Amino acid sequence: MIKVTIGIDIGGTGTKFGLVDVDGNVLFQGAISTQTHEKFNDYISELANEVKKGIDPEKHQLIGIGAGAPNGNIYRGTIEDAPNLRWRGILPLAKSLEDIFNVPTVVTNDANAAAVGEMIFGGAKNMKDFIVITLGTGLGGGIVTNGQLVNGYDGFAGELGHLSIHHGQGRFCGCGKRGCLETYVSATGIKRTVYKLLADYLEDSELRGISFHNLSTKMITEVANRGDIIAKKAFEYTGRILGTKLADTVHHTNPEAIFIFGGLSLAGDLIFKPTIEHLEKNLMSFYKGKVKILPSSLQNQSAPIIGASSLVWDKLMKEKDQLFV
Amino acid sequence: MIKVTIGIDIGGTGTKFGLVDVDGNVLFQGAISTQTHEKFNDYISELANEVKKGIDPEKHQLIGIGAGAPNGNIYRGTIEDAPNLRWRGILPLAKSLEDIFNVPTVVTNDANAAAVGEMIFGGAKNMKDFIVITLGTGLGGGIVTNGQLVNGYDGFAGELGHLSIHHGQGRFCGCGKRGCLETYVSATGIKRTVYKLLADYLEDSELRGISFHNLSTKMITEVANRGDIIAKKAFEYTGRILGTKLADTVHHTNPEAIFIFGGLSLAGDLIFKPTIEHLEKNLMSFYKGKVKILPSSLQNQSAPIIGASSLVWDKLMKEKDQLFV
Repeated sequence: MIKVTIGIDIGGTGTKFGLVDVDGNVLFQGAISTQTHEKFNDYISELANEVKKGIDPEKHQLIGIGAGAPNGNIYRGTIEDAPNLRWRGILPLAKSLEDIFNVPTVVTNDANAAAVGEMIFGGAKNMKDFIVITLGTGLGGGIVTNGQLVNGYDGFAGELGHLSIHHGQGRFCGCGKRGCLETYVSATGIKRTVYKLLADYLEDSELRGISFHNLSTKMITEVANRGDIIAKKAFEYTGRILGTKLADTVHHTNPEAIFIFGGLSLAGDLIFKPTIEHLEKNLMSFYKGKVKILPSSLQNQSAPIIGASSLVWDKLMKEKDQLFV
Repeated sequence: MIKVTIGIDIGGTGTKFGLVDVDGNVLFQGAISTQTHEKFNDYISELANEVKKGIDPEKHQLIGIGAGAPNGNIYRGTIEDAPNLRWRGILPLAKSLEDIFNVPTVVTNDANAAAVGEMIFGGAKNMKDFIVITLGTGLGGGIVTNGQLVNGYDGFAGELGHLSIHHGQGRFCGCGKRGCLETYVSATGIKRTVYKLLADYLEDSELRGISFHNLSTKMITEVANRGDIIAKKAFEYTGRILGTKLADTVHHTNPEAIFIFGGLSLAGDLIFKPTIEHLEKNLMSFYKGKVKILPSSLQNQSAPIIGASSLVWDKLMKEKDQLFV
C-alpha cells in the first residue's frame, strides 16, 4: 500500500486534482469545471466521483486531502465569499470532503498552498522563514515564519496583493480599494501598465496592434525579448513596484528567500533584475544582499495540485511523526 | 526559594534592570549609565555587580536573564552595530552575562521584548497573533504569529520603523533611507510634524514659542488637549500615517490586536482615533472592524524590565514545561 493524499486546486473557471505521494509524485490527475453546477453540493459530488476514479483501494491508502481555494480559510475549512466563484457565502469545503472520504482535509488559499508546497517539496525544503508570491490574475502571498505557515487570527494572513502602493489613489482594484499592489504586479497588472505606457510614450511598439483582451504576459515577454521598448519598460515598471513593496515585507518578517511563482516569473531577468534592484535600494543596511529572490521550483502544470496536497503532508508530519517511522 | 529572572533594558543613555518573578512582579530594580564605560566589559562588570546586590541567594533561585537591547540579535545573543551605543561592532551580551551568572540568557531588541512581555504578562495573554508597536525616539515592531515571536532568518524581523511612506522621498532617516515610518510616527516624528505644520499654516499656537529641542510629546499632548489647532493637527497627521501603514501590516500577518506602547500612546483618543479611522479605511473588507488597536497594558516604568524578563520565562515555558509543574 502506498500512502497518498489528494491535492485539489480550485480556480474560478476550472478545478484540478490529483493523487500525490509523500515524495510529491503525482500518481493520477484530472480536472473538472468549477462553473457548471448551480449547487455547491453537486460540484462536490462530481469532484468526488472523478477523484475516486484515480484511487485503487488495493494500492492506495488515502490519508488526507489538501485544497487550495479562493478565500479558503484554514481554521474553518471553508471558502468564504469568494468573488470569483458562483456560490455565495460560506462553503463548507473541508466538511463536505471529509463526509465523503473520511480523512482529514485542509483548506487554504492557493498562495498559502504554494508556500507549503515550496517548503515540503520545493526550493524552501530547508528554510524556516520565507515567502512565496504567486503572480496570476492577481497577486497572492504565502508567509512562513518559524517553519510554520502564517495564517493570522482570522485565517486571512498574506493578502499581499492588497498592500497599498498609492494610499487612496492609483489604480482601481476589484477589492474596492485603490492602488493595491496586484493592480500593478500580476498578469493583469502588467497589461494595465503596457496600456499606460502606450498612452504616455510616443515610441512605436508591436503591442500597439493588440487589444487589451488579447494581450498576455507571454506576449509581452516575447516582444520584450525582441527589444520592444514599451514591453521592456513595462517589466521595469512592474519590477520596480514589486521590489519596492517587497522591501516592506522584508522589514516585517526578515525572510531568507522570496520565491516568485506564476506566469510573470517565467520572464526571467526581465522581471527579476528590476525587482532585486529596487528591493535592495529600499532595504535597511543589515538586510542588504541577504534576501534571495528566486523563481519557484514548482512551476509545472501540476504545481498547484502538489502545493495543495502538501498541506496535508505538512499537517500530518507535524501532528504525528510516527506516521513516517 | 522563589524562581526569579533578571530583566535588563539597555537604552542609549541608561540601562535599567530588575529581578522579576513568574507573575511579573519586580522584586528589585536599579539602573546604571550606558555611557560611562569606554570598554564594553567594564560596563558588563558594573551591571553584574549592581544586579547581584538584588539577589539574595537564600531566597532567590536565578533561572535566566532576558535583555532588550538596540540591534539585539536573539539567535546570536549579540548586540550588532547599534548606532546609539558607544561600543562598535558585535557585542557578545548573552555570553558575557552567562559567564558571570551561569544561567541561560536571551537577547533581542526592545520591541520584541515588549511583544513577549505583552504575551506573558500583559494584554496579549490569550493571543497567538498580535503585534506590538513601541513609540519612543523611534518606532519598533514586535510580531507574534502562531504564539511565537517572529525573529526572521537573520533575527531582524519587525523593523516596522523603517517601512517606507514615500519611496525614496520624504523625511531623512537616521538609517540612511528617506520616508521611513519612524520619521513621522515616534516622539521625534511628531515633533518634526509640529514644525512642518507651524511652517505650513498661519494659525497661532502655543508651540510657536517652543524650540525643537524643548518640544516633547507630553507638551504636544497637553496643548492639544487645550484645543491648540496645530497640536491637534499633528496628532491627526501622525495617526493618519500610522493607521494607513498598519493596514499593510494587517495584510501581512492578520493580527488579532495591535498594541501601542510608549509616550505617544498615552495621548489616548488624540492618537488612537485617527489611527483606527485610517487603518479601517485601508483594510480589505474581511479585516474591517476586526483588528483591535489597544494601548499596551504594560505602560509603567518597569515595563521594559518586565518585557525583557519575559523573554526567558517564555523560553523556559516552551522548552521545559516541567519547570512549572
